Amino acid sequence: MSKGCLVQCSANYMPLSPISFLERAAVVYGDKVSIVYGGQRFSWKETHQRCFKVASAFVHLGISRHVVVAAFAPNIPALYELHFSVPMAGAILCALNIRLDSPTLSLILQQLEAKAILVDHQYIEVVLQALDILSQTKSNPPLLILIPEFDQSSSSSSPIDLDLPPGTLNYNDLLQAKAEPNFQILRPNNECDPISVSYTSGSTGNPKGVLYSHRAVYLNSLAAIFQSDMRKMPVFLWTVEMFRCNGWCFPWAVAALGGTNICLRNVSAKLIFEAIHLHKVTHMCGAPSILNILADASENDQTRRIKSRVEIIVAGALPAPQILTKVAELGFNVSHGYGMTEALGPAIVTPCKPGQKQSQYNLMMEGVDVKDPNTMESVEFDGKTMGEIMFRGNTLMLDYLENSKPVHEVFKGGWYRTGDLAVRHPDGYIQMKDRARDIIICGGEVISTLEVEAVLLTHPQVLQAAVVGRYDEVLGETPCAFVKLKEGFGGGGEASSREIMEFCEGKLPGFMVPKVVIFGDLPSPTGKIQKFVLREKANLVGGQE
Amino acid sequence: MSKGCLVQCSANYMPLSPISFLERAAVVYGDKVSIVYGGQRFSWKETHQRCFKVASAFVHLGISRHVVVAAFAPNIPALYELHFSVPMAGAILCALNIRLDSPTLSLILQQLEAKAILVDHQYIEVVLQALDILSQTKSNPPLLILIPEFDQSSSSSSPIDLDLPPGTLNYNDLLQAKAEPNFQILRPNNECDPISVSYTSGSTGNPKGVLYSHRAVYLNSLAAIFQSDMRKMPVFLWTVEMFRCNGWCFPWAVAALGGTNICLRNVSAKLIFEAIHLHKVTHMCGAPSILNILADASENDQTRRIKSRVEIIVAGALPAPQILTKVAELGFNVSHGYGMTEALGPAIVTPCKPGQKQSQYNLMMEGVDVKDPNTMESVEFDGKTMGEIMFRGNTLMLDYLENSKPVHEVFKGGWYRTGDLAVRHPDGYIQMKDRARDIIICGGEVISTLEVEAVLLTHPQVLQAAVVGRYDEVLGETPCAFVKLKEGFGGGGEASSREIMEFCEGKLPGFMVPKVVIFGDLPSPTGKIQKFVLREKANLVGGQE
Repeated sequence: MSKGCLVQCSANYMPLSPISFLERAAVVYGDKVSIVYGGQRFSWKETHQRCFKVASAFVHLGISRHVVVAAFAPNIPALYELHFSVPMAGAILCALNIRLDSPTLSLILQQLEAKAILVDHQYIEVVLQALDILSQTKSNPPLLILIPEFDQSSSSSSPIDLDLPPGTLNYNDLLQAKAEPNFQILRPNNECDPISVSYTSGSTGNPKGVLYSHRAVYLNSLAAIFQSDMRKMPVFLWTVEMFRCNGWCFPWAVAALGGTNICLRNVSAKLIFEAIHLHKVTHMCGAPSILNILADASENDQTRRIKSRVEIIVAGALPAPQILTKVAELGFNVSHGYGMTEALGPAIVTPCKPGQKQSQYNLMMEGVDVKDPNTMESVEFDGKTMGEIMFRGNTLMLDYLENSKPVHEVFKGGWYRTGDLAVRHPDGYIQMKDRARDIIICGGEVISTLEVEAVLLTHPQVLQAAVVGRYDEVLGETPCAFVKLKEGFGGGGEASSREIMEFCEGKLPGFMVPKVVIFGDLPSPTGKIQKFVLREKANLVGGQE
Repeated sequence: MSKGCLVQCSANYMPLSPISFLERAAVVYGDKVSIVYGGQRFSWKETHQRCFKVASAFVHLGISRHVVVAAFAPNIPALYELHFSVPMAGAILCALNIRLDSPTLSLILQQLEAKAILVDHQYIEVVLQALDILSQTKSNPPLLILIPEFDQSSSSSSPIDLDLPPGTLNYNDLLQAKAEPNFQILRPNNECDPISVSYTSGSTGNPKGVLYSHRAVYLNSLAAIFQSDMRKMPVFLWTVEMFRCNGWCFPWAVAALGGTNICLRNVSAKLIFEAIHLHKVTHMCGAPSILNILADASENDQTRRIKSRVEIIVAGALPAPQILTKVAELGFNVSHGYGMTEALGPAIVTPCKPGQKQSQYNLMMEGVDVKDPNTMESVEFDGKTMGEIMFRGNTLMLDYLENSKPVHEVFKGGWYRTGDLAVRHPDGYIQMKDRARDIIICGGEVISTLEVEAVLLTHPQVLQAAVVGRYDEVLGETPCAFVKLKEGFGGGGEASSREIMEFCEGKLPGFMVPKVVIFGDLPSPTGKIQKFVLREKANLVGGQE
């Protein structure tokens, strides 16, 4: 038999790209609803046409191959569309965290060399300030494109009385411009070409730009479908922010299945329950805080019972067990995701069911292991030996932006080193213990801050908790707890430091009980608690509060 | 931003291969049932171990990279395992049609340069005869490996009193051999390396060997999951033969989802209904004849009602509508697939529901069109203009075997030319009219033989029907029908030629009514009716029968 008979041509080989999902949806699901946003609805045929037009306009504006287009918007249809229109112009999308402040934003825009920034009208001021800062150092600022609210879609003039820089465009102008008659979208030449940049939310205070390839997001979109057990035409409620790892690839996944996207500008219990009833939502995702929102919903928000159970995946530290039970009772199937920006979102998703401890890592991940970071040997399946969680597979980032961290450090040895420490149980279950940098060594004992936080969260008055190491002359470090109480409970009011410590005492070994408890808000400007800020703070306060 | 920042290393890039599905199933679904065959059951951990051992044994025997391993077996566990163990040795699997005769088989084995052939004990004689023919021209025959029935799995001696060639091995010996201590499976160096060869079943009398790549079958396995609307852990009943396009990629798809394979040596209504009840089958596939089997099941075979509906995809000409209705009433959701060996099985799957005419082409297919084969322009969506169905996408064959057809003929213009003629309706629906070579031109009128066959099948006594063109001095060609009547109705007995023609008259335009009707068995040695044989036959008979 011939061995060199490989044939690759445009008939049987095409670079993988999620653009194909939209093109197919326009044919196979053409008249089905693609997006609902308030009173606005689009079909897949319309969404495809809109993205095609915007891509054509981008190319006409000189925004094309390998250029970065930034976006600063909540989960509105325009941001969804940009997940297709930007790649269709050959360009790279960077959906930015809308909680960034102007100085950080200006820094990131400079790092990206962004050629354009699309801004939701509600967030225009912070972007104008960032552009102002940028103009002091850079002569060639990005093109500003304003996204007005939908009601104003017929008007191309700015809906807000703002002093917009000359040359500012309106998103609706791009849509209303005629597409170039012979415009052809710019598919990637190579499926490993970048499609987007996501910024890590900065738990270290050093946000890194993470590049994704067309191939990786294509495959991860499929992985997301399998992880969330989606079938054809799901109804996806947008409670996870699209600026987080491109909404865990769900913008592309929903198109692949011809599903319906329910866009939300803001998230509240009322809006979530309304959407579930009105649109028969099947799936949603988000930070664990969404479980608190659901559990705390007033009777009024839940006037109608959920008829068909809703799948919900949350990533991050889980809230107290009673919250999980409550949410399950309301009609949600909760799963817990573990992942990071570098892995395009959750790489392991485990249903929150009693006894369910399988590590269901995603279908596209080629390897998931807990290893000694020096020898690269897998740790024993003994539930005791700690190692670093490592991944390998096609659904990992392509690279960091060149001015961020060097990627070879985290890919050393052919595995992505997550920086998270875990043990492996005899049944293979991977139990995460802590971030490598957060773990506390107290008199030789290793303390998982996650385990202490989990106990704190079972206290009826505790809303949020974060534990860090605090310098100690004798023991090296001791655990220091930062606690935010539920509304109606003032700082240091009902629950005192002593009470919190006593609460922990029966539940944790003595050395794990916090020696200091500090009440107040926890710093999380971009949504993730900044432990590096808390560590500084912990070392500033004296003895036991 | 850096443009040349592509990083590809073993951490974030691995050639796509369905081998990964098995490796993951062994971890994520380790203790779940992978295969049931009569009283025999395996877990995913066991299936992985067995495949690993066999792969190691293959390499030890010198069967490794780019070598072809043939298999001649029904849907038994060993054939399922070979879909993984052969690629894990770096080799190429060729599952052969067990209805091949010895001369054809010997020809194919020579074409393949097969280094080994694994044979189910039931089919050993035809293979021995083929090897005998082969030995007359070839000094280096393939290694023979006998697969005994499971009951004899403990014995390594041949279970059948046959004169096996010296050096014949037993599949159980491979399994019982110790794996090389440091054996590492041979993953493809390139994801476009071949993983298998499938033979087209020969509707032209010229069977072609079709090569599939690791990438194509990986992606098509996922496409098969989406097409059949599978979720995690399906229960798949093996009624489609694994030797047909590798069972439409379902051996790999079921592993991807950690499902259960119900293997069957033979297919009967009794066995199917038993399996459905016993194992809670969710999905099955096959030739349309399976619908007849289900519809004709005696009350005894259906003693218990199907509790949960079963998805069934059939590919080929559909039987009469009343059969479809009956099967739906029994508890099956029937979908109709259109595809071919070159497209790895069904590329378009449409649910058989009234009014459902969407062309739901598979998720991985990048383009599906009806084109003028000369200009390559898409035909009008008018339901009239005929063109050729063409595909492009990553789930097409890699190549034909070099001694088969030249692949550039069918890939000309960057599309795979199916050779099937169709029209496109205003809603985009693709209605297939006929194979290009089967269509009849009668006095300038174009006759779709499929349409005539569809009418013939609605006759209460007709079991099978095939229509071909018959030479006519005046009109060029006229339709000639070959008909097999249902059991109890002899050739030419109850339904006469005249009756059959009269039956067609009200239902088809005059020029489409068969002018000759011939009764008897239809030639389909490999399962597909050979119209080229019928055409010869049609021209041998005189006038109206």
